[in-house]
Amino acid sequence: MFKRIIEVSSQDTDALGHVNNTTIPLWFESARNPFYKIFNPTMKLDANTWNLIMVHTEYDYLDQIYYADKIEIRTYVEKIGNTSCTVYQEAWQNNQKKATGKAVLVYYDFKKQNKMTIPDKIKEKLEEHKL
Amino acid sequence: MFKRIIEVSSQDTDALGHVNNTTIPLWFESARNPFYKIFNPTMKLDANTWNLIMVHTEYDYLDQIYYADKIEIRTYVEKIGNTSCTVYQEAWQNNQKKATGKAVLVYYDFKKQNKMTIPDKIKEKLEEHKL
Amino acid sequence: MFKRIIEVSSQDTDALGHVNNTTIPLWFESARNPFYKIFNPTMKLDANTWNLIMVHTEYDYLDQIYYADKIEIRTYVEKIGNTSCTVYQEAWQNNQKKATGKAVLVYYDFKKQNKMTIPDKIKEKLEEHKL
Amino acid sequence: MFKRIIEVSSQDTDALGHVNNTTIPLWFESARNPFYKIFNPTMKLDANTWNLIMVHTEYDYLDQIYYADKIEIRTYVEKIGNTSCTVYQEAWQNNQKKATGKAVLVYYDFKKQNKMTIPDKIKEKLEEHKL
Repeated sequence: MFKRIIEVSSQDTDALGHVNNTTIPLWFESARNPFYKIFNPTMKLDANTWNLIMVHTEYDYLDQIYYADKIEIRTYVEKIGNTSCTVYQEAWQNNQKKATGKAVLVYYDFKKQNKMTIPDKIKEKLEEHKL
Repeated sequence: MFKRIIEVSSQDTDALGHVNNTTIPLWFESARNPFYKIFNPTMKLDANTWNLIMVHTEYDYLDQIYYADKIEIRTYVEKIGNTSCTVYQEAWQNNQKKATGKAVLVYYDFKKQNKMTIPDKIKEKLEEHKL
Repeated sequence: MFKRIIEVSSQDTDALGHVNNTTIPLWFESARNPFYKIFNPTMKLDANTWNLIMVHTEYDYLDQIYYADKIEIRTYVEKIGNTSCTVYQEAWQNNQKKATGKAVLVYYDFKKQNKMTIPDKIKEKLEEHKL
Repeated sequence: MFKRIIEVSSQDTDALGHVNNTTIPLWFESARNPFYKIFNPTMKLDANTWNLIMVHTEYDYLDQIYYADKIEIRTYVEKIGNTSCTVYQEAWQNNQKKATGKAVLVYYDFKKQNKMTIPDKIKEKLEEHKL
C-alpha cells in the first residue's frame, strides 16, 4: 500500500462548500505516482518511454470532504492481469473513509499502439502492494 | 440529449501527447450543466439552494483524444430512481466515440443532509432526455 | 479580437461561493486557442511542431464571478515584438468586466531551445487583433 | 518562509512534454495554505469566516519544468500594507529556480463586501515570513 498526504487547496472545493467530485480523480492520479514508478523507474513521461494507458476509472463518494483537514490517500494493487492491472484507492479525512475508486491500466506500447504482457519482475513488485 | 462542444485546451493534454484521464471528469461535469438546470432552474450553486449530490462516477477511455479537434459531449439521462438519477455521457472527436461515463446523483437537502424524493415534475423533464 | 463564451462549471467555483483565482488562468489559456492558431495553423501541440512558450502571465481580479451566468472572454494582441508577443484578455459576466490579464509568449524552437524572430506573415495576422 | 514539496502529477504536464503554465497558479495557491492560516487559524473556507480575497496574481516562467523530479515551493511575505498583503513565491526543481510569482490579497469582509485593516497581531506573524 502506498500512502500520500494531501492538503486540500481552495481550488479543490466548490460553491457547495465541499470538495468537488472532479477533485478526487486529480488526487487519485497524483497518488498513483509510486505505482507508476514500478512500471517506469525513470518516471520519464513521454510516449517513447511510458508504458501504461488508462482504460477505466470509477469513484464512489461516500461522504463530503471539507477544506480544513488533511487527506490521506491509500493506494493498493487490486488485481494483476496479463496485460492490465487494477488499482484500488481510498481517500480518508479525520479517520473517516470519504471516497474510494478504481483505475484499470493497460501495459501499453505507445509507439505501436499495442497492449503488452506485464513482465514477471513487475508483477512481483506489484504483489507487494496487493489489497 | 444535451450536446456541448468543447475545444481542447493545452492544459487538458499531458506529456504523453494526449488528453489526460482526469480531463474527462472535468468535461463531463461541465456538460451536465443543462441537466443540473432541470433540478435547479436558478442555477444558484450554494448549499441553501442546490439539491444534487454526486455519489458515483465512472469513465471508460475507449481511444486517445488529441488537442487539435473539437469534442462533442452528449449527455443522456439513463435511469430515473426515486431519490437518484443516473446520467450517461459520451465524448466524440472526429466522429469517433472516445470516452463514455456515468454519474449517479442523489436528490439531496444539503442543510438537513438527507436524500429527498425527486418530484414528478422534474421526472417528466428528465424523461425528455432519456437514453 | 477573439471572443469566447464560457459556461462556468461547478469545479470553477470554490467554497467562498465564487470562481477561484486559479480558474481565470485556465479560462484565458483556453481562449488563446485562436491566437495560437495564427502561429500554429495545424494546432499540432508537440515539441517538434509547436512554436510558442509562455514566459509571463498576470491577472487582475476586479470583481467576484459567480456560477449561474455565462462568461465572455475577449482576447486581444497588445504588443508584437521581434521574438515575443503580449496578449491582453478580459473576462466579462453580465456586462461587467470581472477580470483582466496579460500573457507574454516567446516565438520558440523547442528542439533547439532557442527563441526565434516572428515572421512578418504572422505579424500581419496578429495586427488584425490588436487592442 | 514556508516550504512545500510537490510531486508533479501527469495532469500537471501538457503535450509539449513540460508542466503547463496554468499549473503554476494551482501549485502556488496550494502552497499559500500556511499563509492563509495566519489570517484564518480555523481554516474555515466559507464567506462567513474567511477574510482574504485575491486581487492580483502574476507568474514568471523562467525555465521548463518536467514530470520526474519533485518541486519545492518557497513562499514569502513580500509586503504588508494596511489592508493588503503581497506574497512572493518560487518554484524550484533540481536546485534550479524555475518559476516565480506574486499574489496580492486584500483583507476582506465577504458579508459586507468591504476591505478591512489588517490587525497588528496578524502583521507581526506575517513579519516572521518576510522576504
